[in-house]
Amino acid sequence: MVHEDETLDDLLINNLKVIQKKKGFRFTLDSVLLAHFATVKEEDRVVDLGTGTGVIPLLLSTRARKLLIWGVEIQEEIAEMAERSVRLNGLENSIFIRRGDVRDIHKTLGGGIHTLVKANPPYWTLQEGKPSQLEARAVSRHEVNCALEDIVASAAKLLNYQGRFALIHRSERLCDLLKLLRGHGLEPRRLRFVHSFLAKNAKHVLVEARRNAPAELKVLPPLVVYDRPGKYGKEVLKWYGKEGEDGK
Amino acid sequence: MVHEDETLDDLLINNLKVIQKKKGFRFTLDSVLLAHFATVKEEDRVVDLGTGTGVIPLLLSTRARKLLIWGVEIQEEIAEMAERSVRLNGLENSIFIRRGDVRDIHKTLGGGIHTLVKANPPYWTLQEGKPSQLEARAVSRHEVNCALEDIVASAAKLLNYQGRFALIHRSERLCDLLKLLRGHGLEPRRLRFVHSFLAKNAKHVLVEARRNAPAELKVLPPLVVYDRPGKYGKEVLKWYGKEGEDGK
Repeated sequence: MVHEDETLDDLLINNLKVIQKKKGFRFTLDSVLLAHFATVKEEDRVVDLGTGTGVIPLLLSTRARKLLIWGVEIQEEIAEMAERSVRLNGLENSIFIRRGDVRDIHKTLGGGIHTLVKANPPYWTLQEGKPSQLEARAVSRHEVNCALEDIVASAAKLLNYQGRFALIHRSERLCDLLKLLRGHGLEPRRLRFVHSFLAKNAKHVLVEARRNAPAELKVLPPLVVYDRPGKYGKEVLKWYGKEGEDGK
Repeated sequence: MVHEDETLDDLLINNLKVIQKKKGFRFTLDSVLLAHFATVKEEDRVVDLGTGTGVIPLLLSTRARKLLIWGVEIQEEIAEMAERSVRLNGLENSIFIRRGDVRDIHKTLGGGIHTLVKANPPYWTLQEGKPSQLEARAVSRHEVNCALEDIVASAAKLLNYQGRFALIHRSERLCDLLKLLRGHGLEPRRLRFVHSFLAKNAKHVLVEARRNAPAELKVLPPLVVYDRPGKYGKEVLKWYGKEGEDGK
């Protein structure tokens, strides 16, 4: 089930495995952080926008037993890999990979009926830096196929009345992000900043917003990735296995 | 110089003292955090909006030698106390207390000529909770005399082309705050969240915005007030003297 230009990597939880290209996009710690950050309820109907190799659906499946998770991926080759990973883990009854563009995926998956949407969107606009030359990696890191606003708009369409949207992004873009969320009726409710070390600036921020929620923002304790160079902090170790590597 | 219903309190730095009412508004750790947070340059012209007993100007005066600082206070009785504190510390040549309303103080102090504005604004709107029955305390904690937007608008008017505005507020109101700042041409540049303990949610946030600056937000390491109950963290101790009390 694993091709020659691919590797089979251990997600270090519940014996889950994921198929990745040797060269090209490989999942990062950010997906792991996001999978653990969102509030998950037992019977959530989840959509992961831009699911890539399906790491977020796979990790999420460990957080509650009755989740139904749709992973949306626009690149055929990556979607096909994600599907093989789902089968390889025997999760065909709870994770469904769908080809599609986030901008109109609500037409296929249904608008206003999902309870949780997740996204680990491209971090860079096309104006920022040079998109990676490998196509798949460029799409995952730069806003090639869709801008941040397309993703936020899509989440707003997919979610039901009090549905939640959780994402991770660069903390540098916090102001834009909060404004976009509110502009689409998604009230930011929980923020968590990710610091590589306690004494360093945050690079990333985890955000959870909710449709039709009052403006009561909670800023959670900082998430500190490393205790010291090469040694994960307690919280990351707990999720990630003590011999975990960050996949980068 | 100190009246019978007042106390003379040590600011625990450079032998500075401040006169406070025994009953009524007394300064809190938040002012100390704010005084140390803002970027201060040697020849800054500073305005402290809603200066109260003048704690922020007094503390700021220790950060550079050539600062000129105007403290604006609308309540006559408090302004008069602040003036006595300034004289008592021999700082009449660098700190100037002005009676006035933040909404039109630029007419007196001059618009577009200051390099740094600070504010520790009231944390609560009149819709939130019951204003304290003691008048002075009510004005300092609730938006009795002016709303957050008045303060932001005032800062924007006072500042020169690249002037900085630093304030502290409840992190719950972060979204409104960032939106207001941008709406008045003040781009948020530095955020620092204040956590009482590392494992607790942030209650307050320190924000520095700059006029005519590009959108590049830095989220600084968290400021952790206490190591354990009753014991200040390293950073606070450094500013605040090892026997400091938080003045609440």
